[in-house]
Amino acid sequence: MTDLFASLARPLLYPEKVAIVGASDDPGKTTGRPQRFLAQAGYRGAAYFVNPRRETVQGEKAWPSLEDLPEVPDHVYIVTGAEAAIEAVGQCARIGVPVATVLSSGFAEDGPEGLAREDRLRAAAAEGPVRVVGPSSLGVVHPAAGVMLTGNAAFGEPGTPCGGVFVASQSGSVIGALVSRARGRGVGFAGLVSTGGEADLSLGEICLATVDDPNVTSYALFLESLRRSEDLAAFARAAAEAGKPVAVYKLGRSEQAAALAVSHTGALAGEDAESEAFFRACGFARVSHFEGLIEAPALLERIPSGAEPRSPRIGVVTTTGGGAAVMVDQLAVRGLNVAAPSRDLVAAMNAGGAQVPHSLIADLGLAGARHDIVTQALRLMQDSGEFDLIVFVIGSSARLNPELAVQAIAARGGHPVPVVAFALPEAPDAAALLNASGVPAFRTPESGADVIAAAFGRRGCTVGAEFRPGGPDAETATLDERESGRLLEKHSVRTPASAALEVSELDGPTRLPFGYPVVVKALSDRLPHKTDAGGVVLGVEDADGIRDAAKRIVASVAAYDPAIALDRVLVQEMIDGAGVEVLLGYRVSRDVGPMVVLSTGGVLAELYADSATRLAPVDLGTAHEMIREVRGLASLRGYRGGTPGDVDALARAIVGLSALAVHEPDVVEAEINPLVVRAAGEGVLALDALVRIQTEGAR
Amino acid sequence: MTDLFASLARPLLYPEKVAIVGASDDPGKTTGRPQRFLAQAGYRGAAYFVNPRRETVQGEKAWPSLEDLPEVPDHVYIVTGAEAAIEAVGQCARIGVPVATVLSSGFAEDGPEGLAREDRLRAAAAEGPVRVVGPSSLGVVHPAAGVMLTGNAAFGEPGTPCGGVFVASQSGSVIGALVSRARGRGVGFAGLVSTGGEADLSLGEICLATVDDPNVTSYALFLESLRRSEDLAAFARAAAEAGKPVAVYKLGRSEQAAALAVSHTGALAGEDAESEAFFRACGFARVSHFEGLIEAPALLERIPSGAEPRSPRIGVVTTTGGGAAVMVDQLAVRGLNVAAPSRDLVAAMNAGGAQVPHSLIADLGLAGARHDIVTQALRLMQDSGEFDLIVFVIGSSARLNPELAVQAIAARGGHPVPVVAFALPEAPDAAALLNASGVPAFRTPESGADVIAAAFGRRGCTVGAEFRPGGPDAETATLDERESGRLLEKHSVRTPASAALEVSELDGPTRLPFGYPVVVKALSDRLPHKTDAGGVVLGVEDADGIRDAAKRIVASVAAYDPAIALDRVLVQEMIDGAGVEVLLGYRVSRDVGPMVVLSTGGVLAELYADSATRLAPVDLGTAHEMIREVRGLASLRGYRGGTPGDVDALARAIVGLSALAVHEPDVVEAEINPLVVRAAGEGVLALDALVRIQTEGAR
Repeated sequence: MTDLFASLARPLLYPEKVAIVGASDDPGKTTGRPQRFLAQAGYRGAAYFVNPRRETVQGEKAWPSLEDLPEVPDHVYIVTGAEAAIEAVGQCARIGVPVATVLSSGFAEDGPEGLAREDRLRAAAAEGPVRVVGPSSLGVVHPAAGVMLTGNAAFGEPGTPCGGVFVASQSGSVIGALVSRARGRGVGFAGLVSTGGEADLSLGEICLATVDDPNVTSYALFLESLRRSEDLAAFARAAAEAGKPVAVYKLGRSEQAAALAVSHTGALAGEDAESEAFFRACGFARVSHFEGLIEAPALLERIPSGAEPRSPRIGVVTTTGGGAAVMVDQLAVRGLNVAAPSRDLVAAMNAGGAQVPHSLIADLGLAGARHDIVTQALRLMQDSGEFDLIVFVIGSSARLNPELAVQAIAARGGHPVPVVAFALPEAPDAAALLNASGVPAFRTPESGADVIAAAFGRRGCTVGAEFRPGGPDAETATLDERESGRLLEKHSVRTPASAALEVSELDGPTRLPFGYPVVVKALSDRLPHKTDAGGVVLGVEDADGIRDAAKRIVASVAAYDPAIALDRVLVQEMIDGAGVEVLLGYRVSRDVGPMVVLSTGGVLAELYADSATRLAPVDLGTAHEMIREVRGLASLRGYRGGTPGDVDALARAIVGLSALAVHEPDVVEAEINPLVVRAAGEGVLALDALVRIQTEGAR
Repeated sequence: MTDLFASLARPLLYPEKVAIVGASDDPGKTTGRPQRFLAQAGYRGAAYFVNPRRETVQGEKAWPSLEDLPEVPDHVYIVTGAEAAIEAVGQCARIGVPVATVLSSGFAEDGPEGLAREDRLRAAAAEGPVRVVGPSSLGVVHPAAGVMLTGNAAFGEPGTPCGGVFVASQSGSVIGALVSRARGRGVGFAGLVSTGGEADLSLGEICLATVDDPNVTSYALFLESLRRSEDLAAFARAAAEAGKPVAVYKLGRSEQAAALAVSHTGALAGEDAESEAFFRACGFARVSHFEGLIEAPALLERIPSGAEPRSPRIGVVTTTGGGAAVMVDQLAVRGLNVAAPSRDLVAAMNAGGAQVPHSLIADLGLAGARHDIVTQALRLMQDSGEFDLIVFVIGSSARLNPELAVQAIAARGGHPVPVVAFALPEAPDAAALLNASGVPAFRTPESGADVIAAAFGRRGCTVGAEFRPGGPDAETATLDERESGRLLEKHSVRTPASAALEVSELDGPTRLPFGYPVVVKALSDRLPHKTDAGGVVLGVEDADGIRDAAKRIVASVAAYDPAIALDRVLVQEMIDGAGVEVLLGYRVSRDVGPMVVLSTGGVLAELYADSATRLAPVDLGTAHEMIREVRGLASLRGYRGGTPGDVDALARAIVGLSALAVHEPDVVEAEINPLVVRAAGEGVLALDALVRIQTEGAR
């Protein structure tokens, strides 16, 4: 057991003495519920109820304050108003309570006044060892221990299902909703925490503390926005090391919801692509269906996260052809192709009594919904070596005759080749039996396919101990094109040969280390949009031409912005533009730190949302994965008879640019637009680049 | 009541005398179930059981044959093997049974032998008035009448919910699955038919017959592939006229599932875009989530199908901010934007006791889950005129305290502005109450948003009585470019000025009705890919140039294909290529008849699946809708400061090309690639076109 488990997870989830501050006598009120729920769940520790205005609450003694209790609680749930909560947290600090959870709202989400209140809350906590969950936390629940420190009415229902999934949610109502949706389905929880405003303990810290809890086998996270990503990253590393998989659902796929998350929580929301890149680096499986949060963990526990991209071989077996086709459709639209059973395999099934036609799926037919037929078909498929995952689509027998197919499927849950199930009818009892037997069961084909895609799409955790989010707070400045080019060359990104010439010396002899024609460009760190300013002349044929071009450029730039006195031009080798133009970018994000982005050039990347984003730095394998991910770069792969581009050189350029994260802490942004990718073997060339650095202090 | 209702729907759904041919004594067998289910459902008509090998079946008299029955049944369910079924259908025909449903398989899906059997089945039916459902039909169910002519085990469960939804499904297991998923949710059925192989009665014919059934208020169709679309179109027109909305789920969004549908059913599968265009013309709402089939009908009944594209104003009100954000996200990723309540509206709510912050959604908060607060908030929103639809996202009270929010919401179901509900927790009882009260309730946010998008996305039925599917069976031929151009000009699509010149006469004087430079092209109806054959020379400056170009073209074409003796070239005005190139196509599809397709030029349309397809002909409004639908054509709309293109001229060209469907029955395909769209006011021009016609018989 780690120190963190002992100091934080134990009082959080396994408290032996709890106190409710602000406990109400009315068991129906939010502030009266924790007491009722603790009793109902059979909590066996000591429970104290603090209410200075009463002698008793719900028949138990009411204590005037935390300081009057006969012993120091491990975990205090504070359900008072905001000001009283700050006071109570201060008391917790002073008497040495290790964990306090705060229900009260009225903090960061409430504007400047609330922010000030939150500072005071933190200051009160800092007076002692107490760590705070919340504010605005709907509570902490550990069903196996009867710990029900929650005002969420959903926990008034007896029998919260116990199991191995640990839920951490930025939304309090979600923890209750997940429990209700998991009920009767064979999915249970090792703990549920509503993390609230994360004024002290972040969601990542809370999860990290639980990694060494032997009862926790997997995680389900509900995020409204990405906060304190350094803590999430630390948790991700620990979870990966412990082999405990993480499913995450995050709001903000749409811009409207991202904006709503901001107004709802008072937190800043980053772009969804940043979150996506971050989760990928963490090795988290991001689900896009809400119920995926309860359906994914069981499958993730069965499928190791791949270090390499994988194309899983998915076998489908069914007693309902129509239902199986629904599942195949959902898998295929997510890029997961179903593998047909081999002729030999079908022959073996049929020799054993099945009547499976040769097809993409093993359709046992209505008549095949028999225990012996199903057992034999699954055994043969699992032993065949032809599949990485088997999906069983069950027909009407799933609901009414579990002894036919469902029990036979459940018995195959222990095989190294996992089998998952989707029942076409509503069949909660079947789901309960299957989930309990190691066969993850899905309620809808859409969520099922989404979970399977997320499970096979995740990678190992690659986010390092050095991970630091945070964009530039300091002043920044733009490098001129020549300096930008030098920086890129240093990191293995080739630029055209060039020379900087003083405008005042152009009347003398011009000697270039490369031949004509050339391009002449304004050279200034104050002119990021040269072309708009008339600062570029192409196809210059000789020294006189350079002089003329430079004069025109000086005049144009002066007209464009009189504040810029141009004293130098950049003369650049004129490059035959043959090749595919891509945009390669690097930036340091406030939420997730350094990132590298690849997209097609022009407006299309934006129109089609067609780009690949990763945390930087990346390795060659990841760079190749990024190239494959951008659909519009199919031409690089020789799509439709096109000339294949130098994909290897592009991958090296991506790796090179992403290494800015390691070697150039001052760089906050770099955009190469365009980077020309030439034919295979001929390399890539950065035709224009813009680099921005911070001018005071490094990250 | 129409003749069709009396002759077909009445015996199908309201039979007074039924017979089961092949009835088994074992009530657990598929062939024994119909008898058991009829008894269990309390069917009050006469029921006869035919089994020549027994005296009794399940305690009832067994009749040796249909011809021995004391009266002629209205509806016979045949559950024998294939050969016996053909015989029984013949008997039905001879004794005058109006409807026979055939469970037996072994027909079209079984290769040539099965196809022959299916011909014999049809021939047997043709001996009399009988119409056949199936073969491979899992049966016909009309719960309110106790009609349970089905072998689907799902109907062994008592209490199939009654209601207004009529289900027709090409998959038999789906009808049972939908019933089980609708149970306890307040959704019920006016009939369910497994249409099977559609050897005689098509799914469209069956639905058409029921349009005049007053108990049917809406339709839910499950399609594996598009068959007999002319019948579906006739049904669509009748349903639209009767104001009965149609939801459809169709397999085959992915190529793999389309291929599976072929192998599973023996039917041909068309492209998904064709189906999409067809459903749109029918005014059907296509859902992409399986449960949408039971969730959509109630909403469709509340939202009239729009003749014009609509951007609905969707208001969101909630007692759980986190849950509402999930819904907002799902709506927004489908292009449905949530409309914020006005300041006045929020003020009015708060004056009435709510504490709603100014935000995108009306968040009543945990404390707002009170009957009076919810009632008042909904009433104000519905009366405000600010919304076309209101989505209520309910928190934990939905499950445990329906008296708080759920009952208040249910009471607002009758208002002209519809309200729909999504409960974050599992809350089947709430769904049942809400659905029964006119508040469509969704189980998952994904399906809910999908259904809302489908409801607002559908259009009025535009498919005309003249609708005929069917591609060319006859021989086809390609028109040469000059004839293709003439045809286009006739239909308002401009082409460059051109002249056809005989190669043998080029040494004489060449007089052109337009100026130089010109393009010279091979002119042949046997050379669809001129460029590949070296058949195009650009930028020809004078008459000598034309002669030289023609010689080179003749030589190149001869080398490319010695069988082509080129005797003419086309000389075309050389067009300044400025503008946006699009691809505009027309083709006659076997499944859905004439269609018009718009996409970006080049390979991108394919990479990004970025095209718009409609049944032809289209009107100007639809043409504009198509232009808006192609994301890659954003540049035409002046995206990011680009020059806006002549969108009106493009719309006229789309309408013109689509009119081939009406005026040129011989044309089976026309592809304009590229069509150049110039700046606003400057029109469009077809730079190249290929037209294919059928050479014997018109459509």
